[in-house]
Amino acid sequence: MQKETKTLDIEFTKRREQWIAEWKDFLRFPSISADPAHTADCVACANWLKQHLARLGFKAQTFKTPEKPVVFAERAGAPNSHVVLFYGHYDVQPPDPLDLWISRPFEPEARRGRIYARGAADNKGQLFYVLKAIESLLRTKRPLPTLKILIEGEEECGSIGIAHFLRANRRRVRADTLFVTDTDMTQSGKPAIVMGLRGIIHLTVHLKGPSHDLHSGVHGGIAPNPATGMAHLLASLHHRDGSIAVSGFMAGVKPPTRRERSLAVAEPVRPKAYFDDTGVLPVGGERGFSPVERAGFRPTIEINGIHSGYGGAGQKTIIPSSALAKITARLVPGQDPQACLRTIVRHLRRNAPGGLTVSFSDCGVSGRGFRLDTDSGIAGRARTLLREVTGHEPVFLWHGASVPIVNELARASGAEPLLTGFGMEADRIHSPNESFSIRQFRMGYLYSALLLSSLATR
Amino acid sequence: MQKETKTLDIEFTKRREQWIAEWKDFLRFPSISADPAHTADCVACANWLKQHLARLGFKAQTFKTPEKPVVFAERAGAPNSHVVLFYGHYDVQPPDPLDLWISRPFEPEARRGRIYARGAADNKGQLFYVLKAIESLLRTKRPLPTLKILIEGEEECGSIGIAHFLRANRRRVRADTLFVTDTDMTQSGKPAIVMGLRGIIHLTVHLKGPSHDLHSGVHGGIAPNPATGMAHLLASLHHRDGSIAVSGFMAGVKPPTRRERSLAVAEPVRPKAYFDDTGVLPVGGERGFSPVERAGFRPTIEINGIHSGYGGAGQKTIIPSSALAKITARLVPGQDPQACLRTIVRHLRRNAPGGLTVSFSDCGVSGRGFRLDTDSGIAGRARTLLREVTGHEPVFLWHGASVPIVNELARASGAEPLLTGFGMEADRIHSPNESFSIRQFRMGYLYSALLLSSLATR
Repeated sequence: MQKETKTLDIEFTKRREQWIAEWKDFLRFPSISADPAHTADCVACANWLKQHLARLGFKAQTFKTPEKPVVFAERAGAPNSHVVLFYGHYDVQPPDPLDLWISRPFEPEARRGRIYARGAADNKGQLFYVLKAIESLLRTKRPLPTLKILIEGEEECGSIGIAHFLRANRRRVRADTLFVTDTDMTQSGKPAIVMGLRGIIHLTVHLKGPSHDLHSGVHGGIAPNPATGMAHLLASLHHRDGSIAVSGFMAGVKPPTRRERSLAVAEPVRPKAYFDDTGVLPVGGERGFSPVERAGFRPTIEINGIHSGYGGAGQKTIIPSSALAKITARLVPGQDPQACLRTIVRHLRRNAPGGLTVSFSDCGVSGRGFRLDTDSGIAGRARTLLREVTGHEPVFLWHGASVPIVNELARASGAEPLLTGFGMEADRIHSPNESFSIRQFRMGYLYSALLLSSLATR
Repeated sequence: MQKETKTLDIEFTKRREQWIAEWKDFLRFPSISADPAHTADCVACANWLKQHLARLGFKAQTFKTPEKPVVFAERAGAPNSHVVLFYGHYDVQPPDPLDLWISRPFEPEARRGRIYARGAADNKGQLFYVLKAIESLLRTKRPLPTLKILIEGEEECGSIGIAHFLRANRRRVRADTLFVTDTDMTQSGKPAIVMGLRGIIHLTVHLKGPSHDLHSGVHGGIAPNPATGMAHLLASLHHRDGSIAVSGFMAGVKPPTRRERSLAVAEPVRPKAYFDDTGVLPVGGERGFSPVERAGFRPTIEINGIHSGYGGAGQKTIIPSSALAKITARLVPGQDPQACLRTIVRHLRRNAPGGLTVSFSDCGVSGRGFRLDTDSGIAGRARTLLREVTGHEPVFLWHGASVPIVNELARASGAEPLLTGFGMEADRIHSPNESFSIRQFRMGYLYSALLLSSLATR
């Protein structure tokens, strides 16, 4: 371990309890962006962050938007240093189903070296170690680059506020490097540099049938059944081989380069490890592609939920009056999100079962897919530091998830994105009992501090 | 109107308010058989009926069963009279969704000549007018046939208790005529004699996927999705033309005779009237058959509910960990219920999507389909009386619904079934705001009294 790393690690050990206490304070805000009932909690969380950044010596502000506030903070660094724009989000996913949580989602609890809470990893944990890295560099009087910190409150539900902020503050966010930690390590625990992310679009489809639930005996065979209709409609989105059956949806899909493909398949999904983590084998999606290719280079259409009719104990002999399905699609470079959304809507309209009325709500686009250049300079720097901190050779990852705003931020800031995070499958983000280990927190902290320190000079 | 009808009608006018008050008392019991939380309400309702029958001069008892109690009451009639077994049920469907009720489901309310409550029609209303018919015949000192009254508490959820009762009391239920009023008039308001009912089987199918909800970006294209899988699985139950795709399910289906078919199609479903009643056109089920044929002579597989993943506001970007669907199938004569259930289970197992685990719960059989003889003597008698009471020529109906126990009761009692009821689509049985009109109640009362009076002599 190099001297700088050692000094920073000593600082970690010294401040550890204090930092965990602060991190828990941050986790106590139920900043659920998707639920309007939690708007005030989001505002309170943004204010807490602003004050925290101000105490670190930043010029920190919260910006009102049509939705949740955006936190923006700046601090001038060494002359001629890099300008680093750090992006994070303080909002979290809804915690339901609540009854599956061992401790309450907004009452953080430490168990066996992990902090359990909604947002423990995504993104409060991965954001907070960066703030503590900055604090450490300041305490130990190390040079820092010019820092711009932009933390939004709607990453989990459309990033409307930050888009609004970016339109009005384009100049303010100009930077050389866009630093994002909202990403994962590999399944086997190797550090990873995310070279690609997928875009995302979303919609809710409704099938309206009878004006009220009908008796399934009297009407079975006469009235069209929205539950049955929804099954047929959703089944029509994919061919039997798992490929997407929506006409026009695949237009423009950009295949990986040979180098991208060979780097990606070098880190395959191991079926047994995947099963141990998730309870299923990696057999979803299209035939003819390996799991890493399917997640990294192929789009998907996923059903996030279907609801229709009765689901309780016993029988309820009804033809339900309606059905709904929540759908998201992940897009790869070359696909136009608006066009993709249109192809799905058109497909669902065309395939709507006779006698039922199809309609849509919550339709939206949250970003394109994108890929970074495998020969990027910043990627090389990150690689060295990740190796230093973790002792493992980092891998390049083409990630299936979306940080929709990354694409937009890269465009607005002119910065080269660097996506390196310390998330792991065991963190169970978006699920009950989300957590983040102190070990992951420490690695993230060390790496962030070394990276920022290195960017203080050109 | 004949003299006897007039006398009975005068009696109705005189007692009307008293009878409505009693009927409301009956409706106040939340005797929801499917919900174990309401077992005590079912018992209380059975006891109320027993006391009511005892006051009419019946030897009335409640019989314990493994499930809800059965009410059985007897009264000897004129020597050499017919023996009539009247069947009804005191249990009701669950009332949810509660927020769609205008008045509360178990606080009966009169509005514009209708009584609104869960069970107002099905079957408390249609049962209670028969009791009032008996009361009237007794008050006016008219001869009565020997009466056996059998009222169960699980018609809506499998009739386990009454099956148990019948096994132990076969001799007790012997009768000439099995009188059932749990049926409807035609859509256009003509009186109807139900010549056939469908059988019913039920099952719940579960698809288990990941051990917890997965992030749909990280795992989309890798993990198999139970919501998508359930859509494909359920869609596989039917061909594109609406016919059933389950191998072996249609084995033995008995087509209607020419006379049955021509009588059935004489009373077609009118698309406009059907749409006004239900909000949908009668375009469900198989191509190539008219709606009355589809409901009367063809089996169906209906999805009563599908539930998987997120259904709330905004997006939740998950691959749900599981999916469930509730299924009932309606059977026609010639189909063996156990065999049909096996074919569906086998089909769902064979078609289970890769990587997901299919399992079943709540599988059961509640009765075969059956048809009565169009030349039956009792049918002729009912036809005359229905014409007298309603002023319309009655029609023969082959009904899509199931009163599973009717088949079993006919077998146990040796009696010829007579299924004549006064239900209408506007009653919205099984739906919010169930109701029954005083007009229907009066017709049912007059008809029942005339019928029973006529059966006092051979």
